[in-house]
Amino acid sequence: MANIPEPGNPEPGNLVPVEPEPRIRLGRLQERLQGLGLDALLVTQPENVRYLTGFTGSLGRLLVSRQGSYLIVDVRYREQAARESSCQVMQVLGSGYEEATAEAVRLSKARRVGFESGALSYWSHGRLEVLLAGIARLIPSGGETEALRLIKDASERAALRRAARITAEAMDETLSRVEAGMTEREVAAEFEVRMRRKGGGMLSFPTLVGSAERSALAHPEPTDRVIADGDLVLLDGGTTVEGYHADMTRMLVVGTPTARQQQVMEAVREALEAAIALVRPSMPISRIVKAAQGVMERHDLGTANSFGLGHGVGLALHEEPWLVEGEVGVLQEGMVIALEPGAYLEGWGGIRLEELILVGARGPERLTALEGRPLALFPVAKSC
Amino acid sequence: MANIPEPGNPEPGNLVPVEPEPRIRLGRLQERLQGLGLDALLVTQPENVRYLTGFTGSLGRLLVSRQGSYLIVDVRYREQAARESSCQVMQVLGSGYEEATAEAVRLSKARRVGFESGALSYWSHGRLEVLLAGIARLIPSGGETEALRLIKDASERAALRRAARITAEAMDETLSRVEAGMTEREVAAEFEVRMRRKGGGMLSFPTLVGSAERSALAHPEPTDRVIADGDLVLLDGGTTVEGYHADMTRMLVVGTPTARQQQVMEAVREALEAAIALVRPSMPISRIVKAAQGVMERHDLGTANSFGLGHGVGLALHEEPWLVEGEVGVLQEGMVIALEPGAYLEGWGGIRLEELILVGARGPERLTALEGRPLALFPVAKSC
Repeated sequence: MANIPEPGNPEPGNLVPVEPEPRIRLGRLQERLQGLGLDALLVTQPENVRYLTGFTGSLGRLLVSRQGSYLIVDVRYREQAARESSCQVMQVLGSGYEEATAEAVRLSKARRVGFESGALSYWSHGRLEVLLAGIARLIPSGGETEALRLIKDASERAALRRAARITAEAMDETLSRVEAGMTEREVAAEFEVRMRRKGGGMLSFPTLVGSAERSALAHPEPTDRVIADGDLVLLDGGTTVEGYHADMTRMLVVGTPTARQQQVMEAVREALEAAIALVRPSMPISRIVKAAQGVMERHDLGTANSFGLGHGVGLALHEEPWLVEGEVGVLQEGMVIALEPGAYLEGWGGIRLEELILVGARGPERLTALEGRPLALFPVAKSC
Repeated sequence: MANIPEPGNPEPGNLVPVEPEPRIRLGRLQERLQGLGLDALLVTQPENVRYLTGFTGSLGRLLVSRQGSYLIVDVRYREQAARESSCQVMQVLGSGYEEATAEAVRLSKARRVGFESGALSYWSHGRLEVLLAGIARLIPSGGETEALRLIKDASERAALRRAARITAEAMDETLSRVEAGMTEREVAAEFEVRMRRKGGGMLSFPTLVGSAERSALAHPEPTDRVIADGDLVLLDGGTTVEGYHADMTRMLVVGTPTARQQQVMEAVREALEAAIALVRPSMPISRIVKAAQGVMERHDLGTANSFGLGHGVGLALHEEPWLVEGEVGVLQEGMVIALEPGAYLEGWGGIRLEELILVGARGPERLTALEGRPLALFPVAKSC
């Protein structure tokens, strides 16, 4: 950390090293504080802390003030925090996060301290209020860092591209090996070990494998169910790279698909393509949601498509923007979204296709599509 | 769910079916409400919701009242909630969790409603207070369900035994295959796929693999570092079974251990055994912590052992009881704890050994030890 210059104080005549991205992000947030009427902002939402500091530990808090910032961690993370972040590190004694936070506020001399009201518990707020009586006022805030996280910077795009690539390759290889007689659990194992071997980090979320009617479940945890000839198989999963999540779903029919399976698959594929075709900066989200919904309705599947079209993806698996009915925003360059239309028919099964997309200046960049290959949205495996 | 009798209303003359455990737990909590001066309790802590209802979704709330209980979920989980839980299911419209919660309170006719003050955000509390004005009073509470979760019932013990067994077998097999030239990431992949194939569910936490000096990190995420002859290798991980976590750490030296490696390993092994030997009902936690610490001090490693001796394990990876200095409680039959003494020497490496233990009536049941095998706490692999 020693080679990072203090802001506004580069060595004269020397090249200024490239600032690490968390430091740039933190600077942006610091600049906003005055406009928000705050001297400091207490950040407790874990992904926000990581985004602003680079700190990858599971527990930590950040007090951002106009003068400087304090990263508050317990003993387990003291060294890691100092290594990963350029913020001043404050160590919590015992389990006293509130006491350490109050101490950071005192050191910052802040009087008006915003806090993330959706990410601080009622208890923590009450305790902090007692500790800061006469010292500072706590002001409900929130959403400031999420607004910055909406647009992915260069290092975030690189991590998301890599996570998506690893996921797409592992999923493609896994699905080409699925045959009757395998269990759902074996499919998950195959997929997960391939991602690991390609350089994947922790899973984006527990891998979902649903075969036959289980494919209609929102979150089918893989079981020992044996996959049979004619089964639909849904595989939904992904790896993280540097904390950034991939999220992708593909479907398979073992053996020869029925006419109905082909028909529903074609509807979902068409809905996905209709949505992707509209992805570009300034596009209203509601138009994209309507386009996909329109396709489903034309195929008489309008009511089978109930879980929302998609969501933003980044340090969190699910984050802004939300691609759901009634949403008012527009897409912006640098957003990364998962589009996942599906048809869920109880007792029959479900079909979902999901692609991770970067909103590029001129249109969509499909992060989970494999170059030089057909879309492969409906690979049909041989039965054994 | 149809074959579950209403409480107090079994068919006369018939055998009463065994009540599902979540229902028994919920009944216990309902009985406690009056003593707490509450008509109802709003449960928002995710593991508490699962414990009391059997509902396995990632998002849901529970209003427990003396008359009945409402499980509050969004559209994605409506069917799953109805299938998994015997509570009445209320569906959230859009993202309106507070509105649905307020509606459940109205239906329950509760006037004094406790809430988990450490697991409800400042924002949610404020919104609920507005919605319930003149209808009910919100009363800061918390810890009621955690107190029940301390003692594992029969189905919880079975899940923890199975998770520990899968983890222990996979770890044993993995470590016996580690050799110079493998990367940390490959070790993690090997371990994870073996747990999956043995019937493991999602990981308890992202697998930790730290080789050489990286073994001293609190949470070494596996990297592409190539393991060399003479390296210490730390493997810490586990699988879940039905939501219950295994947690286990073993160490390895590739090739011939140095005298120092053997010495530190022996100290940590001795500290672990000293702690385990004291595990039985009514034993003060402070005595166990002191016993392990005493061993470390005799080996001049007193200050290298900084992260606490252990923690309870169940639906959460880390839960009560906490085995740390200054803790006042005693062990009780049916608690499950992870004991994990370690020595962390910056620049040299770290050695930690961790065993999952059920507090049995007559003493410790080692869940992560493999029968008929030596303790295998220090397997020494061949170098290649």
